[in-house]
Amino acid sequence: MMTATSPSHAPFHAVDLIRSKRDGGELSDAQIDWLIAEYTADEIADEQMSALAMAILFRGLNARELDRWTKAMINSGERLDFSGLSRPTVDKHSTGGVGDKITLPLVPLVAACGVAVPQLSGRGLGHTGGTLDKLESIPGWRAAGPGLVPADKKLYALRDVTGTVESIPLIASSIMSKKLAAGTAALVLDVKVGSGAFMKTLESARELAQTMVAVGRAEGVTTVALLTDMSVPLGLTAGNALEVEEAIEVLAGGGPSDVVELTVALAREMVAAAGRDDHDPAALLASGVAMDVWRSMIIAQGGDPDAALPTAHESDVITAERDGVLQSLDALAVGEAAWRLGAGRARKEHAVQPGAGVVLHAKPGTRVRAGQPLITLHTDAPERFSRAREALQGAYMFGEAAPQMRPLILGRIV
Amino acid sequence: MMTATSPSHAPFHAVDLIRSKRDGGELSDAQIDWLIAEYTADEIADEQMSALAMAILFRGLNARELDRWTKAMINSGERLDFSGLSRPTVDKHSTGGVGDKITLPLVPLVAACGVAVPQLSGRGLGHTGGTLDKLESIPGWRAAGPGLVPADKKLYALRDVTGTVESIPLIASSIMSKKLAAGTAALVLDVKVGSGAFMKTLESARELAQTMVAVGRAEGVTTVALLTDMSVPLGLTAGNALEVEEAIEVLAGGGPSDVVELTVALAREMVAAAGRDDHDPAALLASGVAMDVWRSMIIAQGGDPDAALPTAHESDVITAERDGVLQSLDALAVGEAAWRLGAGRARKEHAVQPGAGVVLHAKPGTRVRAGQPLITLHTDAPERFSRAREALQGAYMFGEAAPQMRPLILGRIV
Repeated sequence: MMTATSPSHAPFHAVDLIRSKRDGGELSDAQIDWLIAEYTADEIADEQMSALAMAILFRGLNARELDRWTKAMINSGERLDFSGLSRPTVDKHSTGGVGDKITLPLVPLVAACGVAVPQLSGRGLGHTGGTLDKLESIPGWRAAGPGLVPADKKLYALRDVTGTVESIPLIASSIMSKKLAAGTAALVLDVKVGSGAFMKTLESARELAQTMVAVGRAEGVTTVALLTDMSVPLGLTAGNALEVEEAIEVLAGGGPSDVVELTVALAREMVAAAGRDDHDPAALLASGVAMDVWRSMIIAQGGDPDAALPTAHESDVITAERDGVLQSLDALAVGEAAWRLGAGRARKEHAVQPGAGVVLHAKPGTRVRAGQPLITLHTDAPERFSRAREALQGAYMFGEAAPQMRPLILGRIV
Repeated sequence: MMTATSPSHAPFHAVDLIRSKRDGGELSDAQIDWLIAEYTADEIADEQMSALAMAILFRGLNARELDRWTKAMINSGERLDFSGLSRPTVDKHSTGGVGDKITLPLVPLVAACGVAVPQLSGRGLGHTGGTLDKLESIPGWRAAGPGLVPADKKLYALRDVTGTVESIPLIASSIMSKKLAAGTAALVLDVKVGSGAFMKTLESARELAQTMVAVGRAEGVTTVALLTDMSVPLGLTAGNALEVEEAIEVLAGGGPSDVVELTVALAREMVAAAGRDDHDPAALLASGVAMDVWRSMIIAQGGDPDAALPTAHESDVITAERDGVLQSLDALAVGEAAWRLGAGRARKEHAVQPGAGVVLHAKPGTRVRAGQPLITLHTDAPERFSRAREALQGAYMFGEAAPQMRPLILGRIV
């Protein structure tokens, strides 16, 4: 049937483009530019864009389409330009995980190596926390970021309620458009794999990483991705102020070994991408220079690096029921528990509790005795303890032998 | 990620149901009931329903899901009940084609056989005309139908602009919910196949027919489908008043043989489904009894069966460029030409020209001479002739041998 659903002066009809993608066709550059511009201007209806997003979820976008889609998203708003800076710029993005506070020690560490990081961080949604929420737990600190990629803001909110988040090209263009609009010269991606990550399998994580690296290269931005394990939480804390505290321990030369390992590995990639591998991130972390940069960064955004971090009013300790070696500790369950305690938000407009979260007293491979504390839950709302304990049921196991452990860094994509 | 996008008292979240179908899962009866009821009540957003429709287009609905979906659509509005009538009821539905005026002679013919037809007809959209538009070309005649299946009204309009019309379960539930809500005891379906039909291949037409027959049976309604050819137009006219004129010729015992053949075949199915095969539709058509019923039906709805039908002010004749036997005459091209002349509408809110359309002077198999009239175009807007001629370019071919002709009735599904 022939139907005319757009004004006749429009070069395309949205319904024709949806049908074309649905039937396995390719969208032209002009069609993609038109789609994103009209959608951003509210000229294409949400119900049309969500149907197209679902068709893309099934049919994909090829490399040309994805590159153009990402460009069109960037062009929906401002594009920052740091090429006038004397220092090289490198940005970092993590696809999100439980206890992933790596950005906090990483950015000052890389800055200490002489590299500028135009990091624009996100809010958390669900069981994966956002860096902005973590930093806002520091008294006085407030974000001030420009509104880049308005098309992504609209499209992400739409995908979230229409079951179209899980499309690799749409994830890649969402992440890459924001990073590229922020004007970086190089980009290091931390693509997480496992129960606590968005990508549950190594194959899907690798596909996402390869897709994003290709988009970055097509835009002339040096892009490297590490595939890293997210089957267990990173470090020993999940929750905003709790994670800031752990990040400060790392900057002070201590902290959990996995957080240190990943911070240093990503820092090495970032300084290498910026051509500043004359610096050794591990040595700079140990020397306390990164901590000095951290303090000045916090002060520059109105925070007090010496102020006490907020703590939750109530806590509840889960103890080991038996002696044994902890075999596993499911990242998703820990993330859900932290979220239920108030560390995360169910809806964008909700606030988080800065002190809420989970502290782990053991990680897989640790031998514990019956009655020993295993996990401490923190919240201002003690009625939440029972739901957090529920989330943790079946989330860990004891055995006698040492468990088989997956390495933290599972792959590297360039 | 865990997101709560509906009020917490809702039994389901729309996004969970979309994801489930997207990933190849089945929707439960309770989920389907909830979806259709909430969508009808504007509680589920259009962008969610369109994403779900696209997921259904890719994943399908199984027999149980489709049966429940259709029931839920029926339950969104009133359901008529004709079981108190002394006559058996049989309804008919055509999936639509070019020159398909069969309903016009068929309904009075079946009524003449002692069978009641609770026919609720539709408007035309695009190149396939609607029975209501045809009847409204009769001076005085106006439709008066109740608003059945409000869920379908909303969903059909949504599917039309989101590229989700072409889903066999959604087509089947749309058609069947309206027919079942209209309270018929039996149903005969005319599923058209070919360029001028919605279903282009025999396979897809058969699948749609089988799907609809299964839904009808599950609801306890005797349902039969004929698969009929729509690679050439039905009869010699396409356009509202032109088709009424041809229908009246058939009721008067004349008219094109294909229109007569299909009218009688469908009438036989309908009277058989109603258990009234004591009547012979072919004889009743020849006897003029069906014409008497037609006249009284037109009068009952305010029309004047003796009034002159509207004619277009302008006409334009396309002649044969050469001698030969007409090999083919593409139904879609003829439908497009009629549509461009003003017989159809581009948007629902548009009006049609009652006198506009196409008259064919030859059908495939006819020998013509160069210069002989082949097609006459009719419109009130002569500037439309050139676009109608364009639509007909390459739509017919001449040869020397008799063309291979496809039978009109291609299959029967019970």
